[in-house]
Amino acid sequence: MMIRFFTTQTNIKGKAIKLSRDDSEHIRSLRLRPDEFFVVCDECGSDYICKLDSDSHGVARIYERQQSCGEASVKCTVYMAYSKGDRLDYAVQKSVELGVYEIVLFESKRCVAVPNNIPKKIERLQRISLETAKQAGRGIVPVVSDGGRFKDILEQNNDTILFYEDEDNLHLKTILEELSADVQSISIITGPEGGFEPSEIEQAKTKGIPVVSLGTRILRSETAPVVALTAIMYHSGNL
Amino acid sequence: MMIRFFTTQTNIKGKAIKLSRDDSEHIRSLRLRPDEFFVVCDECGSDYICKLDSDSHGVARIYERQQSCGEASVKCTVYMAYSKGDRLDYAVQKSVELGVYEIVLFESKRCVAVPNNIPKKIERLQRISLETAKQAGRGIVPVVSDGGRFKDILEQNNDTILFYEDEDNLHLKTILEELSADVQSISIITGPEGGFEPSEIEQAKTKGIPVVSLGTRILRSETAPVVALTAIMYHSGNL
Repeated sequence: MMIRFFTTQTNIKGKAIKLSRDDSEHIRSLRLRPDEFFVVCDECGSDYICKLDSDSHGVARIYERQQSCGEASVKCTVYMAYSKGDRLDYAVQKSVELGVYEIVLFESKRCVAVPNNIPKKIERLQRISLETAKQAGRGIVPVVSDGGRFKDILEQNNDTILFYEDEDNLHLKTILEELSADVQSISIITGPEGGFEPSEIEQAKTKGIPVVSLGTRILRSETAPVVALTAIMYHSGNL
Repeated sequence: MMIRFFTTQTNIKGKAIKLSRDDSEHIRSLRLRPDEFFVVCDECGSDYICKLDSDSHGVARIYERQQSCGEASVKCTVYMAYSKGDRLDYAVQKSVELGVYEIVLFESKRCVAVPNNIPKKIERLQRISLETAKQAGRGIVPVVSDGGRFKDILEQNNDTILFYEDEDNLHLKTILEELSADVQSISIITGPEGGFEPSEIEQAKTKGIPVVSLGTRILRSETAPVVALTAIMYHSGNL
C-alpha cells in the first residue's frame, strides 16, 4: 500500500498540492525517493496519486485522481463514555479501522476517569484517529470530540442505539433488521467500565432510544463500541 | 457480576469444590467475605454459586447450580499468525471476550515475529485467555496452542475461511450465507502484519478453503481475527 496523507481542498491548486509541515517532515523521515508514488486524500472523495515535486519543496505533484474507497455506505457515529488508561486509545484506533464516521466522548454517572484536561485528551485521540485513518486507507479522518454529559448526547436526530449489559431480550440484529434498508446514519452509545446506571437507561428509553444487548458474554468498555460497529458494518454490507 | 473461577469436575465432590492454590490466593487477595457468593464453573456447562467453606481452607461450598450461559452456539476456532509485540495479547483477549472456542497460532512466510520460546509465549497467552474468560463470564477457558506452519493448519475438517486483504470480490457475508444454518464449528485463518504471500493463498485455495475480504479498509493484523469473529457471532445469532 502507498503511504497516505490527508489534505483540504484549499491546498490543491491545479496539479500541485501544498503539503503541511508535518507531512513534509514525515516524508523526509521516511526517505521517500523522488520517483515513489504516495497518496494525498482530500477528505471529499478523491485520492490523488502523487510524487514529490522536484522543483518546489513541500509540494506534491498529482499524477492521477482516483475515487477514495475507504468510506462505508453508512455514517456511523460512536458515542463512547470516558474510560481509564489506554482503553479509549484502543477504542478510537479500532473504530477508525472499522470505518467509524465520527467519535464523541461523554461523561456518564459511573465514569471513573473523566480527564482533567479534556481538550488535551481529545487532541491525543484525534492524533490517533489521523494516524489510523492513514494506515487503514480511509477517505476521511474521523473527528473526535467531547459531547459533554450523557443527557446532552441523547438530544440528536440520527437513528440511535444504546448498548447495555443488563439488557437480555432485545438484540442488535432485531433492531438493525427494523431499520430501513437505505439508512444513511446510525449513532451508537456505549458506557464506561462500570456500565450505565438504571436511571440513565430510563432517560434513554424516554427519548425513544432502543436499549440492546451485545450477547451473553461481558464485553470490556473498550470492546463494546468496536463490536457494535463491526456488527453494523457487517449488517450493512460494509465488510 | 460475581467473581468467577474455573475448575475441573474431578475437584467437585458432593457440595464441596476444592479450589486451586492460585484461586485460593486470589480469593485471599480480594478479601472476599465469608458471606459473599462467587461462581465456580466446571467448563462442562455448569456454574456453581458458592461461598467459602468456613471449616475447610481452600474449599468452596455449593449453594446452587446454574447453566453456564457464556458459550456461543457455534464453536469458532481462530488461527492467527504470530505477530509482533502485544498484538497477540490483544487479539487473544478480544477473541475470548467475543466467544472464541479455541486459538491456534501459526507461522507463515511473512511472519516477522515468531517467538524464540514458543511454549513460553503460549503459556502467557493461555494466562490471558484464563483471565479474560473469568471477566467475560465464559463457560470454558479457550485453549491457546501452537499449530506449527501455515501448511499444517490447512489440514483440518471444519468449515474454514481465510481472510486476505488483497481479495476484493468474495465477501464474508456471501460465504456465511452459504453455510448450513446448523453449522456447529467454523475455523477462520488470519495473517501476520505483512499479510499472506500469493503462494500461500494458492495453497489454501487448492485445499478448497474460501479466501475472503474484510472490506475496503485495511485492518491491522490483530484487528482482523476479532472483526471476523464478531461478524460470525453476529451472523449466527450470538450477539
